[in-house]
Formats: sequence, structure tokens, C-alpha cells
Amino acid sequence: MPAGSLSEQQEDVVSIEYFTEENSVACVLARMDQCRNERFREVMRSVITHLHAVVKEVEPTIDEWMEAIQFLTETGKICDERRQEFILMSDTLGVSMLVDAINHRKPSGATENTVLGPFHVAGAPKRQMGDNICLDGKGEPLYMSGRVVDIHGMPVSGALLDIWHSNEDGYYDVQQPGIQPDFNLRGLFQTGPDGRYWFRSVKPRYYPIPTDGPVGKMLMMMGRHPYRPAHIHFIVGARGYVPVTTHVFVRGDTYLESDAVFGVKDSLIIDFVKHDNEREATRLGVDNPFYVAKHDFVLMRTPR
Amino acid sequence: MPAGSLSEQQEDVVSIEYFTEENSVACVLARMDQCRNERFREVMRSVITHLHAVVKEVEPTIDEWMEAIQFLTETGKICDERRQEFILMSDTLGVSMLVDAINHRKPSGATENTVLGPFHVAGAPKRQMGDNICLDGKGEPLYMSGRVVDIHGMPVSGALLDIWHSNEDGYYDVQQPGIQPDFNLRGLFQTGPDGRYWFRSVKPRYYPIPTDGPVGKMLMMMGRHPYRPAHIHFIVGARGYVPVTTHVFVRGDTYLESDAVFGVKDSLIIDFVKHDNEREATRLGVDNPFYVAKHDFVLMRTPR
Repeated sequence: MPAGSLSEQQEDVVSIEYFTEENSVACVLARMDQCRNERFREVMRSVITHLHAVVKEVEPTIDEWMEAIQFLTETGKICDERRQEFILMSDTLGVSMLVDAINHRKPSGATENTVLGPFHVAGAPKRQMGDNICLDGKGEPLYMSGRVVDIHGMPVSGALLDIWHSNEDGYYDVQQPGIQPDFNLRGLFQTGPDGRYWFRSVKPRYYPIPTDGPVGKMLMMMGRHPYRPAHIHFIVGARGYVPVTTHVFVRGDTYLESDAVFGVKDSLIIDFVKHDNEREATRLGVDNPFYVAKHDFVLMRTPR
Repeated sequence: MPAGSLSEQQEDVVSIEYFTEENSVACVLARMDQCRNERFREVMRSVITHLHAVVKEVEPTIDEWMEAIQFLTETGKICDERRQEFILMSDTLGVSMLVDAINHRKPSGATENTVLGPFHVAGAPKRQMGDNICLDGKGEPLYMSGRVVDIHGMPVSGALLDIWHSNEDGYYDVQQPGIQPDFNLRGLFQTGPDGRYWFRSVKPRYYPIPTDGPVGKMLMMMGRHPYRPAHIHFIVGARGYVPVTTHVFVRGDTYLESDAVFGVKDSLIIDFVKHDNEREATRLGVDNPFYVAKHDFVLMRTPR
């Protein structure tokens, strides 16, 4: 049988660099020579470089690598139209807030963004100023008001406020179909020439993000709790202004300093002041005792 | 209405550092103070640090971030018992080979590892030396032989070789149930005291990894082809030795330098030499013309 001139032929290929632990990043990046999408190449270059860096830092065993594969697979499997576990993972690892921060660098004074969250519903009903968006009367009464202004403090007329929040048990209407009325604790309000808004509702409560999936397990293994501090969501926009997606948080909430999704900013924490005053309650159209919250939203002009 | 002593109360919390673009990594890592699993903390520390580094480097738009979320979600959705798209992603980004390399650092001279791949089947039939593992007679005949030895060149008796490969169309039996016979191109062979092995089969062909999922799209956007160069899989083990999971590759294959999963190593490329010799064909029990391939597997002792 012929021996095969292996050693001679190997000399021909001695210049080819096959994949090794040492050259791994360069070897994979070199495969993008034919990539025509410059942006995609830039993104993949960063992803590949840092993926390999993680592997080199942690030196996973084969079993650990397989656990990571399983974790990602289960995260994909649990996603459906009502649940997005990869967004939850992004949220709980601070990635969502980082992307948000990078995309909303603002001049000092404009209202800061925070995460949209998974419970926004398009097409909430339009309300009249002063309307009560709590449709089932459940919870501690809240009267909230303020103004939409530009960065010079001038009122923004015709600004639209899209408002939504959880009930006193920490659930959104969409999480409790048949228990909460449709569009409970949601509403669209439009400002007049004075930029003012005011509405009635109930005080929101802290709540846990879903913990029955892979992200819940990950949080537990990290030694973390799943809670978000109590907040009210707002999207505030107006023609000629950059819309802001944000929350206001209830000062004093237990979880302000450890929001599971890192959404809290100093400027978004406001006082929910408790009042016990029958006459004032009657004037505002709420039951006594009640909470009062005030907050102004500052919009920046759309860049030309 | 009471104004709420907002400015006074803010002074109380001035020392709390909420999440910002600048402190993002430290802020998320600080949440693992209660993590009791030191290894998990180490892994997550690395993952979080590099995830944030990617975001800071590429500064994804909100739409790009959502595309990444969708890509991961679709990758999870397409996984089932017969398909593991996250492993495919790991393979095509060089992560699998890097994990393999890190877990199989070997003394010079021992046969090098490469990826297991998705087509290994446990419980393949045990064969006699010289058996033909090609059950449907389809393809160019191959006679392969060699020895299993230790790093001093001494034969390893009782070594088990688990062998599998694609047919001449580039498909494994499990990809073509009903077309290829069960356990086609698979078999277990056990060496005698001389450490020798020999078997008959057909020459394998290059083939594409699955391209109808998210990873296929990713490869195309990266400007890459999905092909693996022709190879035969081996797992070689023996009592008292570290088992090696590897391939031998067909020297001269078009895709040796651009294996879609980065599995090629210099030492694993061998000659498949074509012979046209009726007498030799008859002696070896193959049709003329035929290919001959020779390769020795070098095992290292299990560390004590």
C-alpha cells in the first residue's frame, strides 16, 4: 500500500493558519472579508471579539458551555406574543437601559428616558383632563398633575401624554384579563395652550418581573430579587419635539435602589404626598385620604 | 395643593448612584453581592462586562437592538430534538472550537481534538475489522487503516473507535431516513493487541451546515459560505487513556481553509490516495478504482 507523501505535502500548506486558541478572534474575523454590509461587519466584529474574550476569561467546561446553550434555547422557547424573555434578559442585565441611554443623550434639563417595558398597549382610550383612569375603584386615590414644557420652561400646547401603570396589587390590566377592566389604569391626555395636565388614578405598587422562566432562574442564581419599584409610565410627545418614554417613580419605595431592570434615575423620583383633607378631596373629586403627585415633563425640540 | 418638599428630599438620596451610561457595568455587577455561587458570579461578571462593552462599541440603535432580540428569539424557536441552532451559532462564530481547544490542551504528539458535530449517534453497531460500513454501496470505495498508539508509539490494545461520516452527497444517515439504511456509514471497531484498525467505506464529501434558519442568514450577511470540508468523524478511547473526539479531513478539499465551523487542524488533514489496481482492489475487498487513507491515533494516558 502506498504510504502517501504526507510530510512533503504538508510543506505546501505550512503557511495556512488554522484556528487555534491563540488566533481564534483573527481567524473568525478574517472570514468577513466578503461582507458587504459595513455596519453588520462592525457589529459582528465586536460581538465575536467579546464572545471569545468571555470564553478565554471564564474557560467554560464542556458542560458549562452546554448549560449556556440550553439557557439560550429555553429563553427562546418561552417567548410568545405576550412574553419576550430575551428582552427580559436584556433588561435584567442592564443592556436595555444602556441602549436606551446611548440613544437618548439629552441636553441637561430635558426629561430623561427610561425603559418602555413590556406592558405598553397601543390605542389606549383618549381621556378628558381630570378623568379617573382607575376603572374599578381599587386602590388608594391619587391626584396627579403638572405641565409639559420646553427646555426654556414655556408650555407645550397639544402635547399627548400616554399613561399606564400597575394596580395596587402590582398587575397591569393585560396581565389580568377578566379581573381588571380593559384599559384599566391607561389613558391618553392632550394638553391645551397652558401645557397643563391632570388626572385621577390610584397609587401604583412595586411588582416582580416574571420569574417562572430562565431569566427568573438567572436572577435567583445571581442572588437578586425580581422587583421593580412602584412607577407610572409616560410617553410624552408633541409636534416638533422629541418624544420621551419614561416613568415617574414613587419616592420611598423599597426597591428604588435595586430596580431589577435598572430603570431608576434621580430626576424621575417624585413625591407621592399623602393628604387627609375632606374638603380638598371633594374639590379634587377623590376619596379621602388621597395622594398628590406633581411632575413637569420637559421636551427638547426635534433637531433640524 | 402642597408643593412637596422635592428639593429637600433629593438631598437625602444624593449619594445613591443610579444606572448611567458611564457606570453601567459597575452598577449591574454590584447586584451580585448576594450571589453564593462563586463560579456563576465569575461567569456572569465576564458576560455582563463584555455585553456592555459590545453595546458601547457598536452603539446600537433601538431598531438594531430589537433585531438582535428577534435573531436570538428565532434561533431559540427553530431548535428541536433534531436541530440545535444555538450550537450552530456557537460553531460558526468559532466559540465551539475555542471551548474545545481550552478543554483539550494536550502534550505535543497526542491526536488533536475537534468538534463533535450534531450527527453523532450513540449505540452504533459493533463491526469486525475490515467490515464495510457503507451499507448501500453508494460512493467511491475507500480503504482506511492505521493504529491506535500511546505517545511513545506503543500499540493500545482494546481501543474502541467510533466512526461516522457523510455519504458522497454530503448527507448523514440521520438526515436521510428512508433514503439511507439505518446506521449507514457508522460503526464501532475494537483494536487487538497490535493496536491496528482497518475498515472499508466510501470517500466522504464536503457539505453545507443547515442554512434555512437564523444562522444561515447570519452567515450570508457575513459574506460566508456554509460548507464543511469532507471529513470522517472518530471518537477513539481506551481504558486508562483520555478519549479523543476528532475528524480526519480529506487533503485537497476546496473548503479546508474556510471550514464554516473552524474545525480543521493541520495534523488532522490526511491523504486520500486514489488507486487504479485490480489486484490490490481484490486483495482489499473493494471495487476498483478506490481510495486508500492511513492515519494513526495517538492517545495520552489519563492523568492520575
